[in-house]
Amino acid sequence: MTLSLDEVFTLARQALAGQGLAENQASAIARTITAAERDGCQSHGLFRVPFYVAALQNPGIDPAAEPVVSVDSSAVVHVDAGCGFCPLALERGLEHLVERAQALGIAAMAIHRSYNIAALWPEVEHLANAGLIAFAFTASNAYVAPAGGSKPLYGTNPMAFAWPRAQQPPLVFDQASSVSARGEIQLHQQAGQPLPGGWAIDVHGEATTDPASALAGAQLAFGGYKGASLALMIELLAGALIGDLFSFESSAQDVHNTGAPFGGEFLIAISPGRCAPGASNDAHLERAEALFTKILSQDGTRLPSDRRYQARVNHLANGIEIPAPLYEELQGLASE
Amino acid sequence: MTLSLDEVFTLARQALAGQGLAENQASAIARTITAAERDGCQSHGLFRVPFYVAALQNPGIDPAAEPVVSVDSSAVVHVDAGCGFCPLALERGLEHLVERAQALGIAAMAIHRSYNIAALWPEVEHLANAGLIAFAFTASNAYVAPAGGSKPLYGTNPMAFAWPRAQQPPLVFDQASSVSARGEIQLHQQAGQPLPGGWAIDVHGEATTDPASALAGAQLAFGGYKGASLALMIELLAGALIGDLFSFESSAQDVHNTGAPFGGEFLIAISPGRCAPGASNDAHLERAEALFTKILSQDGTRLPSDRRYQARVNHLANGIEIPAPLYEELQGLASE
Repeated sequence: MTLSLDEVFTLARQALAGQGLAENQASAIARTITAAERDGCQSHGLFRVPFYVAALQNPGIDPAAEPVVSVDSSAVVHVDAGCGFCPLALERGLEHLVERAQALGIAAMAIHRSYNIAALWPEVEHLANAGLIAFAFTASNAYVAPAGGSKPLYGTNPMAFAWPRAQQPPLVFDQASSVSARGEIQLHQQAGQPLPGGWAIDVHGEATTDPASALAGAQLAFGGYKGASLALMIELLAGALIGDLFSFESSAQDVHNTGAPFGGEFLIAISPGRCAPGASNDAHLERAEALFTKILSQDGTRLPSDRRYQARVNHLANGIEIPAPLYEELQGLASE
Repeated sequence: MTLSLDEVFTLARQALAGQGLAENQASAIARTITAAERDGCQSHGLFRVPFYVAALQNPGIDPAAEPVVSVDSSAVVHVDAGCGFCPLALERGLEHLVERAQALGIAAMAIHRSYNIAALWPEVEHLANAGLIAFAFTASNAYVAPAGGSKPLYGTNPMAFAWPRAQQPPLVFDQASSVSARGEIQLHQQAGQPLPGGWAIDVHGEATTDPASALAGAQLAFGGYKGASLALMIELLAGALIGDLFSFESSAQDVHNTGAPFGGEFLIAISPGRCAPGASNDAHLERAEALFTKILSQDGTRLPSDRRYQARVNHLANGIEIPAPLYEELQGLASE
């Protein structure tokens, strides 16, 4: 089936609202799901709706949470998500982070007490569209073995980065500290396909390409101990630093095994005009284009977000293909 | 030969001063070299002195540069290194970065116009010893191929991170975006040893384990495209953002092929007490210890900086072994 972006949004929003989420929460989530479908990120698109619904089983969740923003004259913005999902907390906080970063040159935002199963690129792209350089970090559940170890401890712990561009959408990457995102293993499992080598180990610590064994065992960090260092850094930033849960603590409180991480997200935003003496924002952005041109002059290269933006152009023109069973499942959730 | 730390410092300082570096510059560099020898980081120890001396051939270098610090009420500190080496600029700026981060919760520091061939862990360890979480980023010369490409464009672009601990030295990592540091390839070349696979490609883009071919070709980012994304991010942060050179621009101005990158360093420091509502610094630090205990409870694991701190204990007790030819070379530099 082919849907328009508006139809994707309505399908997601109605399915979530039909399962008990308040309108504000459902709409904010549906916006991130729609953005993911628009950009060809299947694993964060409509495929995710049933994961949000499963997360509602968590005894601590508040399906009608109203996030509370705290801002002062410092460079740190806080948003208490109130045990709701993360997208609404982000929407409420981002304008304050933009204001603080523009005022002071660099600022941070901590999202507290949120259930977070969305991608991070929408928020860093949003910040870059406001002219800022942006980072986002979040922990998840205990899926990834530490360097040298064989049992899951870290989350897949993504880190996203965005750089604003004058004539084009921002340069963005959003990459798990693990070789693959958890969702990619789930998609392989649904499709009955083996995993590429090097993604995971089984419960005995042996290499595996079986999705079920990988999900029961441990995922591996990308690039060996260096990726594991990043996973550890993200545990510390999105966990201890901001007073939210580590991935292993999030797993422990997930008593119904819904897979929805509960915890924090940490963001940093930087105003380029404050970082080089005397330089305007435009001067910075222009210099970066010279580097991008150098990258693309080599055969076989692309910029990190190019594929996503190509999918965006395609989907905006042609609509979005949805498997009929998924459409029917979501229609069913909407009318329950 | 076995030297004390004081003897290492004096040997480095006198060799650098003997080659024309001003006392302030030579002492700051000698402190980073001494710290590296103390911690068993050979490639940033006395082995580096001849690289500093070679860097003095750069027509733009000022061997007597006095760094100029600019601080205002914003969260961004600037240090103009004045075309001297980076260590003195860092020493002059770090106290201001600490003050800004403590006042505002997060702050950044840009070092401009510096020649930088030191490791990054000394500055992030310093910031963590002041109770802050710290990041440092710097570009280098064009050594690493972009994702999908085969020609050198990015620097080895290290990123360092530090987390303060109450009862122990900080948790620190300092890792190149490339599989290996440039210095490790140089050490293999000096020792006549082949490289491990996966470190580099030759000038034709083919895999190589020959150090000379690797140095002439391109190094590879760790973890494939994800490590290359980090290398690109670091080019943008330490280059365009702060108005300093990209690695390929640094290479182009290195007319005598000294290998000393000229450009910027970008640091971020975060005060943990401002990041969780109502939490003290101690509360944060205590929570992180639970994660570290979980990591170390798995066989085969260690924390990123453990090996360096073990070497520190050993070298503080027993002194530092130096190859006699290196000692003689440095004595010679001191008396020229």
